[in-house]
Amino acid sequence: MASDKPLQSLTDEVDKWSPYSQTRSTIDEQPLSKDELEKTSKWMHASLYLCLGMLYLKENPLLQEPLKKEHIKARLLGHWGSDAGQSFTYIHMNRLIKKYDLDAFVVSGPGHGAPGLISNFYLEGVYSEVYPEKAEDLQGLQRFFKQFSFPGGIGSHMTPETPGSLHEGGELGYSLSHAFGAVFDHPQTIALTIVGDGESETGPLATSWHSNKFLNPITDGAVLPVLHLNGYKINNPTILARISEEELVALMKGYGWEPYFVEGSDLDTMHQAMAGTLEHCVKEIKRYQKEARDSGKVFRPRWPMIVLRSPKGWTAPRKVEGHYLEGFWRAHQVPLPKVSSDPEQLKMLEEWMRAYEPEKLFTKEGKFIPELRELAPPKGKRMSENPITNGGLIRKPLKLNKFQDYAIKVDKPAVTNYGSMGNFAIFLKDIVKDNMQTFRVMGPDETESNKLSEIYKAGKKIWVNGYLPEDEDGGNLDPNGRVMEMLSEHTVEGWLEGYLLSGRHGLLNSYEPFIHIIDSMVNQHAKWIEKCLEVSWRQAISSLNILLTSTVWRQDHNGFTHQDPGFLDVVANKSPEVVRIYLPPDGNCLLSTMDHCFKSTNYVNVIVADKQLHLQYLNMDAAVEHCTKGLGIWDWASNDQGEEPDVVMASCGDVVTQEALAATALLRQHLPSLKIRFVNVVDLFKLIPNGYHPHGLTNAEYGNYFTTNKPVVFAFHSYPWLVHRLTYNRPGQDLMHVRGYKEKGNIDTPLELAIRNETDRFSLAIRAIDSLTDVLGNRGAGAREKLLEQRIRSMNYAYEEGLDPEEFTNWTWPF
Amino acid sequence: MASDKPLQSLTDEVDKWSPYSQTRSTIDEQPLSKDELEKTSKWMHASLYLCLGMLYLKENPLLQEPLKKEHIKARLLGHWGSDAGQSFTYIHMNRLIKKYDLDAFVVSGPGHGAPGLISNFYLEGVYSEVYPEKAEDLQGLQRFFKQFSFPGGIGSHMTPETPGSLHEGGELGYSLSHAFGAVFDHPQTIALTIVGDGESETGPLATSWHSNKFLNPITDGAVLPVLHLNGYKINNPTILARISEEELVALMKGYGWEPYFVEGSDLDTMHQAMAGTLEHCVKEIKRYQKEARDSGKVFRPRWPMIVLRSPKGWTAPRKVEGHYLEGFWRAHQVPLPKVSSDPEQLKMLEEWMRAYEPEKLFTKEGKFIPELRELAPPKGKRMSENPITNGGLIRKPLKLNKFQDYAIKVDKPAVTNYGSMGNFAIFLKDIVKDNMQTFRVMGPDETESNKLSEIYKAGKKIWVNGYLPEDEDGGNLDPNGRVMEMLSEHTVEGWLEGYLLSGRHGLLNSYEPFIHIIDSMVNQHAKWIEKCLEVSWRQAISSLNILLTSTVWRQDHNGFTHQDPGFLDVVANKSPEVVRIYLPPDGNCLLSTMDHCFKSTNYVNVIVADKQLHLQYLNMDAAVEHCTKGLGIWDWASNDQGEEPDVVMASCGDVVTQEALAATALLRQHLPSLKIRFVNVVDLFKLIPNGYHPHGLTNAEYGNYFTTNKPVVFAFHSYPWLVHRLTYNRPGQDLMHVRGYKEKGNIDTPLELAIRNETDRFSLAIRAIDSLTDVLGNRGAGAREKLLEQRIRSMNYAYEEGLDPEEFTNWTWPF
Repeated sequence: MASDKPLQSLTDEVDKWSPYSQTRSTIDEQPLSKDELEKTSKWMHASLYLCLGMLYLKENPLLQEPLKKEHIKARLLGHWGSDAGQSFTYIHMNRLIKKYDLDAFVVSGPGHGAPGLISNFYLEGVYSEVYPEKAEDLQGLQRFFKQFSFPGGIGSHMTPETPGSLHEGGELGYSLSHAFGAVFDHPQTIALTIVGDGESETGPLATSWHSNKFLNPITDGAVLPVLHLNGYKINNPTILARISEEELVALMKGYGWEPYFVEGSDLDTMHQAMAGTLEHCVKEIKRYQKEARDSGKVFRPRWPMIVLRSPKGWTAPRKVEGHYLEGFWRAHQVPLPKVSSDPEQLKMLEEWMRAYEPEKLFTKEGKFIPELRELAPPKGKRMSENPITNGGLIRKPLKLNKFQDYAIKVDKPAVTNYGSMGNFAIFLKDIVKDNMQTFRVMGPDETESNKLSEIYKAGKKIWVNGYLPEDEDGGNLDPNGRVMEMLSEHTVEGWLEGYLLSGRHGLLNSYEPFIHIIDSMVNQHAKWIEKCLEVSWRQAISSLNILLTSTVWRQDHNGFTHQDPGFLDVVANKSPEVVRIYLPPDGNCLLSTMDHCFKSTNYVNVIVADKQLHLQYLNMDAAVEHCTKGLGIWDWASNDQGEEPDVVMASCGDVVTQEALAATALLRQHLPSLKIRFVNVVDLFKLIPNGYHPHGLTNAEYGNYFTTNKPVVFAFHSYPWLVHRLTYNRPGQDLMHVRGYKEKGNIDTPLELAIRNETDRFSLAIRAIDSLTDVLGNRGAGAREKLLEQRIRSMNYAYEEGLDPEEFTNWTWPF
Repeated sequence: MASDKPLQSLTDEVDKWSPYSQTRSTIDEQPLSKDELEKTSKWMHASLYLCLGMLYLKENPLLQEPLKKEHIKARLLGHWGSDAGQSFTYIHMNRLIKKYDLDAFVVSGPGHGAPGLISNFYLEGVYSEVYPEKAEDLQGLQRFFKQFSFPGGIGSHMTPETPGSLHEGGELGYSLSHAFGAVFDHPQTIALTIVGDGESETGPLATSWHSNKFLNPITDGAVLPVLHLNGYKINNPTILARISEEELVALMKGYGWEPYFVEGSDLDTMHQAMAGTLEHCVKEIKRYQKEARDSGKVFRPRWPMIVLRSPKGWTAPRKVEGHYLEGFWRAHQVPLPKVSSDPEQLKMLEEWMRAYEPEKLFTKEGKFIPELRELAPPKGKRMSENPITNGGLIRKPLKLNKFQDYAIKVDKPAVTNYGSMGNFAIFLKDIVKDNMQTFRVMGPDETESNKLSEIYKAGKKIWVNGYLPEDEDGGNLDPNGRVMEMLSEHTVEGWLEGYLLSGRHGLLNSYEPFIHIIDSMVNQHAKWIEKCLEVSWRQAISSLNILLTSTVWRQDHNGFTHQDPGFLDVVANKSPEVVRIYLPPDGNCLLSTMDHCFKSTNYVNVIVADKQLHLQYLNMDAAVEHCTKGLGIWDWASNDQGEEPDVVMASCGDVVTQEALAATALLRQHLPSLKIRFVNVVDLFKLIPNGYHPHGLTNAEYGNYFTTNKPVVFAFHSYPWLVHRLTYNRPGQDLMHVRGYKEKGNIDTPLELAIRNETDRFSLAIRAIDSLTDVLGNRGAGAREKLLEQRIRSMNYAYEEGLDPEEFTNWTWPF
């Protein structure tokens, strides 16, 4: 069956793929004068020289003496593969920034090719301004080289330590969504976005091209993607570099972009091609913006993008030891890995570096020569200092009304059923209204389902993708909206991250189960923030606020696939300095919590609150006090006043709070002599000992709530083990009985789902009785029997009627 | 700034979007005779009647008496939106299965529209064959209706309980990758794959169109996607339904597909259009397959796909209470939600259902009339009984050599450094060789980096996307390969799931940090398996084996973004019946573990093993014994023989095992009188009490390893809290000190990274000393001092030299 030799695809045109063919470009202009071309070429030489210095050198930065292995770092780390292409792109944008006075910054999708950009940040002076010890002199250069991929130094991506970066690129796929997020409501800004062809295979990147359907050419800036077809990933060709040009053009047009090609490897002709093409694209962007802004009419142009096809490892030796290096995947990482042990490779490296003629680019003292330096945009315009990339610099606090004014009226606890989202949605609407250019709400298509549609009165859903007459009938679409919905958790999260990183505010709302789709993105964002905390010049950005609703306990009808509250476990593993988790039990607590989150900075705040009708417990004063403490004893539900309780009933999460309260009521009805304390937790990290998390209680404080020697029955919203993980070393932890979702579900009723996971009132009360055998003696047996019976009856009712019994759905606090 | 009214996009052609225009199709043929058309139309009526029955009825299934609210389910659940379009597609495939004797099955991307397909499974008889109590009679029909979205019944997706399903579609985005996975190495099979236009916005789906670059037309089957543009998601229009047809054609061609359009709402003309178009597509598939198979030459044709534009909620009332229903997002869920309370709506429903004329479709006894039934493919050919969708039926055990024959020679423990992947890769190569049609290895572009490239000797990387001369120089590409790499964790995971679900075997290998990208997919797969365990006719499928390497402790050089071992926390929350986690400490244990995993069924096996050089501990006999027990005391490293130890040093994970051993050695050197027991854990769930997981030890067994009253210093591969979560209620847990990754990293050396997280030998030994103050008295202080000093010295060495000291990198067991 095996064919002798792989055949070409029917639709391929191999001869056109090779970047070693003659340089080609869609725009055939030669905008650079001879002098400009020469200087541009030299600048690029300087940048590439620095890239190699970063990869290899710890001493002798300008090769002022012959290169010896003592000058080479002991451990060679870093990536050469996309450096040249990224540097090339950056340099040509600089010319246009100067010529057209642009407001631009760069997003580096390939990530690992950071030297290609960092070298430019050094050449234009910003790096030394930010890090004076990496000055523009020999010693500074030596330090600049040595720190790269070196303990105590900087990584090989565009890490937070790098000025001009708001996108690290360690995990691939988010360059475009971050770039779009950063230019929304920044009408003057252009995000030059280098998209790796490896990255372009990821799902998140593949769908994020559609972000252009959500960009308003009047009020937003522009994203100028440069798809860098360098042809290879770590060990494989990339898909987009091997499809025919016909397919690639179709794909980009299909995504709604107008592709312009720049392809080749000859530097001089490539410089002209890129200069002309990039200039054409910038002019197209400005033309479309002018058209929209002059007319006041929003439309979706086919925005320009560039396909840059250049060899991987461009300007490296084509072959080493008989194997392809430049133009093949071997150029991915350190191109000559054996320089320390192999004198041949050391010599090759020295020749390669000297070919850039560093002595003509830098003064003897290590300063970049002024006639090249003047190619950089003037101070204040350099991409690496664009304040957008250090968003805290331009961030203004959100204008917030007093959240107390949105209070739900609660006269008596646990009597009224009311949707917790109701008043919060009004609060949110007013936030939208009062912060029209600096606040957006994101979601994958669930804002209305999540009962937040009140927002649409202030800002509808952004849609720049054609309208139908039906839309007038409740479509809530508007190119000037403030809510962004696309059925891609990745894209909306990426937009929001970009929006926050560039100094604004926002909220992501999502069904709880599907937030796992962006576990890894949230992980990476938390890591970004944590590193920023260690970088003195990074200013605080708004927290990433994630509101999880349509939660597991009310996904009974959607079945097992829609039931997963485990995002909290992922978040709880991140740095305690960064992550916060809140489970407000009712509407007023939700208001208080959200107000706190909106005012906070540099956190990932996860808030879990269901959208369905719920009992309301606390009036606003009580809610504020409760949320401020993060947990509290609910006296109105307890009967241990002034005494040691026999048992503590505890809860964290809105649905389980109702069950825990009902269990408490059942216990008090069946066993009135029992002293029960009811504790509710809003701020999950109160449970962990202080020292592990800034919010953690001391053991003494903890004991004041939970006791150290009484059984605790804890009803938890999520998987029960998270509470055990937080409290494993608390005194009395062996008396802690946690109930939560334990992966038992299907098509259920709410009570039936709870019963299957033993978080229902009956099971909780039974657990309390079972933990109290020493206190109760035989007294518990009768109550236990009755509770068991009720549990079975409820279960059967569900199976027969498809419903829960009325005493469950209409339950209120009986005391 | 706000424009008066949203404008159309420049590139849009609104008039063409509407499915209410005249029916249009790329292929203009009328293949159905009048009789065929009439019957097809009636079949569809029957299917839609059943869909409504499933949504609404608990009694009176054929409306043999007037519809009353007592016949209506108390809780209305389910989705109408895509039912008609999915049913329509299915019906037309049936005709072609009969005409061309096709081997086909269906994948339902929209998921929530399951009634559209389940109704057909009932009509063609399969449902009643599988579930005799849902017979083809009145009572069976009544039960069939009532069970839908009803407690104890079936969900509104294509859940495991549904025959003919291998893809549930609860979480969106995986229809195409699952379909491709299922047809790889099934050359006769066509996967009719309905892709929702909502789903098509997800990242995973957006990139999975590129799967066609990995399909071999000779040895694989075909995927026939039907992109169902029904125009709306829950509350929003879909992107692809609102771009111009020009852009949509370009997008599909850009993805490498040839799109054929079928657009409209008039049923009769749409039937002809779909019949003609689908037939054309099937013929194209067969033509391309014949060309490739006759010539023996692999090529990539532009495979056909269909764009079906029909109204959301097709055949529902166009407006209800003055608002658009059909053709708008309001048709998403239950179309007439108030039938129980509003007599008008009840009447409307009755009229709607009666319009399908159930009395002409079913006999009085409730049997589908024979002249319609004969439209179905014959027994054995119906899509809903295709054994591919119950893959265990056709699964054959993997042919495996004796893994012991691949043993690494270990004469003395902890003396030789060897890469654990080395011999495993050879084992894997032979598995590939011996199972050429039934085993594939997947990865996102890291198989070589993960040191598994030995496999390429048996099967290279599949690539059907054009070749360049450089590929001859180590490209390892081959359209007949067995390794599949695309830089999309989502796609490779989806392929593998599809491949396993359809009865084959495989392995996913990935860098550890980026496996979080598919947290949610693995979640969903685990849920699928768990439900299958409850479905008696579902046969066991091969386990999903995920090998995580390039682990956190050896991602020191790639920095913080590449450090996240938290996937284990996500997996540990899934059903204990399904998930297994193994951390083999060395190469022979890896071989034994992988052999076990490859033989297993119905699990998600996660195996964590690093790719770098590691000390080897156990010869093969010892490894087999160790892995069989899942944990063990390493006598050679312990000095408590026959006595109670003073302290237990424990480890789980390869890198941390070396540090824990080194710590043990340091303790024994500094404090020779100390009795130390060394315990290593391979099978993580041994730690959890029995009853919580089938692998869990009893407390007595646990105590035999860890004692119940001695301090345990436990070095763990992942976040330390997972061990606490597993052992929180073990006797002696308060003496358990776990060290693991606690989110401290940057550009480090391996030892420096360990020190920052306190998992290094010095910190572990110090922790042991600190836990032994009662035993050691003042004796520990001196040793502690020296260890601290060594820790500081190592740290400084890293910062100065960029390396770890030789005594670390070359450490071996000294006794």
